[in-house]
Amino acid sequence: MASTSTEHSKEVAKAAKAAFEQSQLIPSSERISALQAVHAQLKAQKAEILLANEEDLKAARTEVAAGRMSDSLLKRLDLTQGDKWESMLQGILDVASLPDPTGTVTYARELDDDLELYRVACPIGVLLVIFEARPEVVVNIATLAIKSGNAAILKGGKESHRTTGLLSKAISAGLAQTALSETYIQTVQTRDEVSSLLELDQYIDLVIPRGSNSLVKSIQNSTRIPVMGHADGLCSVYLDESADAEKAVRVVIDSKTNYPSACNSAETLIVHESLLTTVWPVVARALLDAKVQLLCDEVTLNALKGLSPPLENLDSRVRPATPSSYTTEHLSLTISVTSIPSLQAAIQFINSHSSHHTDAIVTESDESASIFCRGVDSAGTFVNASTRFADGFRYGFGTEVGISTGRIHARGPVGLEGLVIYKYMMKSKDKKGHIVSEFGTGKKQYKHNPIIAETVPF
Amino acid sequence: MASTSTEHSKEVAKAAKAAFEQSQLIPSSERISALQAVHAQLKAQKAEILLANEEDLKAARTEVAAGRMSDSLLKRLDLTQGDKWESMLQGILDVASLPDPTGTVTYARELDDDLELYRVACPIGVLLVIFEARPEVVVNIATLAIKSGNAAILKGGKESHRTTGLLSKAISAGLAQTALSETYIQTVQTRDEVSSLLELDQYIDLVIPRGSNSLVKSIQNSTRIPVMGHADGLCSVYLDESADAEKAVRVVIDSKTNYPSACNSAETLIVHESLLTTVWPVVARALLDAKVQLLCDEVTLNALKGLSPPLENLDSRVRPATPSSYTTEHLSLTISVTSIPSLQAAIQFINSHSSHHTDAIVTESDESASIFCRGVDSAGTFVNASTRFADGFRYGFGTEVGISTGRIHARGPVGLEGLVIYKYMMKSKDKKGHIVSEFGTGKKQYKHNPIIAETVPF
Repeated sequence: MASTSTEHSKEVAKAAKAAFEQSQLIPSSERISALQAVHAQLKAQKAEILLANEEDLKAARTEVAAGRMSDSLLKRLDLTQGDKWESMLQGILDVASLPDPTGTVTYARELDDDLELYRVACPIGVLLVIFEARPEVVVNIATLAIKSGNAAILKGGKESHRTTGLLSKAISAGLAQTALSETYIQTVQTRDEVSSLLELDQYIDLVIPRGSNSLVKSIQNSTRIPVMGHADGLCSVYLDESADAEKAVRVVIDSKTNYPSACNSAETLIVHESLLTTVWPVVARALLDAKVQLLCDEVTLNALKGLSPPLENLDSRVRPATPSSYTTEHLSLTISVTSIPSLQAAIQFINSHSSHHTDAIVTESDESASIFCRGVDSAGTFVNASTRFADGFRYGFGTEVGISTGRIHARGPVGLEGLVIYKYMMKSKDKKGHIVSEFGTGKKQYKHNPIIAETVPF
Repeated sequence: MASTSTEHSKEVAKAAKAAFEQSQLIPSSERISALQAVHAQLKAQKAEILLANEEDLKAARTEVAAGRMSDSLLKRLDLTQGDKWESMLQGILDVASLPDPTGTVTYARELDDDLELYRVACPIGVLLVIFEARPEVVVNIATLAIKSGNAAILKGGKESHRTTGLLSKAISAGLAQTALSETYIQTVQTRDEVSSLLELDQYIDLVIPRGSNSLVKSIQNSTRIPVMGHADGLCSVYLDESADAEKAVRVVIDSKTNYPSACNSAETLIVHESLLTTVWPVVARALLDAKVQLLCDEVTLNALKGLSPPLENLDSRVRPATPSSYTTEHLSLTISVTSIPSLQAAIQFINSHSSHHTDAIVTESDESASIFCRGVDSAGTFVNASTRFADGFRYGFGTEVGISTGRIHARGPVGLEGLVIYKYMMKSKDKKGHIVSEFGTGKKQYKHNPIIAETVPF
């Protein structure tokens, strides 16, 4: 069994690499045609796919009834919920119409007369994308991969295998109508296959796990292939000494309650101790009114006792925090609260507790804003704005690959740019070609004259 | 012992992270002062350092005499060779005067009235750099780290530990005179410490191994921390159907013989079969005249037999290649030669045999040049130019961190840009602050107006 999956994984990976290499000579306009063909195939096979989805849902309902699966997971499987199907299809066309992330020149120099160097954006190669539950992710990722010129191997959750199997078949059928290879996008179904794929660094160039922190870590532990991880979002809002109460309430409430299960929701509230009897009670009341449970340190908890008018049901809705409260991603209507004596202390608290995702300050001081934005070592540092703005669409990327908590290649919300790298092309137009030994002390010198170019002219 | 080194490694890593975080609020001009202070300290402690270097050399000579160390390794240890010391010191001032790689805005949008987003270049964090033999690398890397705003932990070869110990002391003494922490640059001496450091992904953000392919792979296998690998250079030159003989000779000879032990030297020569009786014999003669040994496939070997005038000592200087010849980094005056029937075959041969470093084509055809540059999946694809041009200085970066054979973050020659990432800063100037729930269907829409800015205005 293991050796069969090893063999199969190797075939899949080799085919992906071959499809990628072959695609390098195909104009990028063909990738747009491919997206349109995939869109048409999915549209044509809608009935069949939704039937498979109903099968997956039926099996899942049995699991839920037996207490082996959560209701929320069941919901995530369902392709017919709301406008999920339509927006999945629309997403293909939206991404197709975005600017081509490849082919752009980002550095160009004339090294010598008739010797030109161009750094040009190009795809990374073969992506291995591992995700859970939601079947539409197959289509989202395939779309991003095709648009950016990367081949991809996808592994979804086993709960949705009937659906993802058919989605994948439709994608291949679409690709088959174009110059791209059918194996440009492939899916695998088992964990054994994933384990084997993680060994194949000669064929696979980047692993993108989308899911829990533990999924990301376990993959990082088991492969030499670079991993673009999307791990926890442990975001915080800091109320500075000069915080305005209205801004504080608006930013805290939006950061916490707008979509509590998102990774860019706030999990921690940090209160400057000068606000304990002023802004803090106002924010606490607003949070409680919004049905948020508070996990408070002693100081912020005491500040809420004996307020007038008193807080209702204080004991049930406000609890003492434990040290682990501040490293917990609640993903629900719960927020951990602590007080600190200074901006410096807030920055240190965030740097040592947050997941370096997104952190916000509420302040009326330009100086505090500037210090916070530089001192907090997170992908996003926001002033008087909700942490929920940390998102590829809101940032203006037109799409989102995910939100990276890594610190190389791409950080924070990742658009199509996160799926490309670059290569250097050099051309000598000299009648004898160019060689290095003609340069040096007493010989020719490098010119390094900038060249203005948007694309490579050869 | 192991637990002592674990404890010590943790202290080192924690101190590095603290030094990095603290440095985020220090203006980048202070990093230039730090480089000047380091330069002055090294200059002042030259005698002492060279004495330690002599001790390392003495110990190494014993090893060489006992046959346990190579002569070339001994040479690499020697800080007094040629102008090594002076150029090491000059390198600090050169890097100090390069443009600041941090603080630059690479994307800026007005998301709404009074809501601005800036993507700004910033350091990665704490680097762990592992290298072999050459002690001056400590100074080179410390310089690059300080300039780019990264803290660094360095581990050199044990053969040079007396020298690197003193170099490191001088660097700390320089740092102590500035606002940067003394622990901004630290060195460790043992493999045990490195093993422990590779576990500490909460403190260390990037590992840069500089050395053999096996060093890089073993590190990739043993850490969750991202690795920027500088592995083999298996570069090739392809002589296209339309290759000009003079260009072919010049490019091949320079690529092979200019500096055979460099990773950007050519190891493989690929000859279009139409050239077997024309350009190939001319190139072969030139290679043999340059004392290069040829490892030929049957076709290219046969083509050299019965030439008139005959090649001297053909049997001793030209040998049959084996399949492994084409995946061997000779790093010496040896080149593997193969013939192929087409440009397509050459591209496939390179993609499946090269290390995706740098590959060159010699051609008079613009079409072949264009196909080669796109079809060959390497960091550098060159037309009528030596593979030896693949170098950070020659590209115009002013310095070189190394040459990455990785495909994310930085590819090919890496300058200071390879040591930075970015963060997003957002500021609301609205009198009520900005929240996400005010945007959406029937509500406010995102504007995404481009902002022209070189630095963050707050």
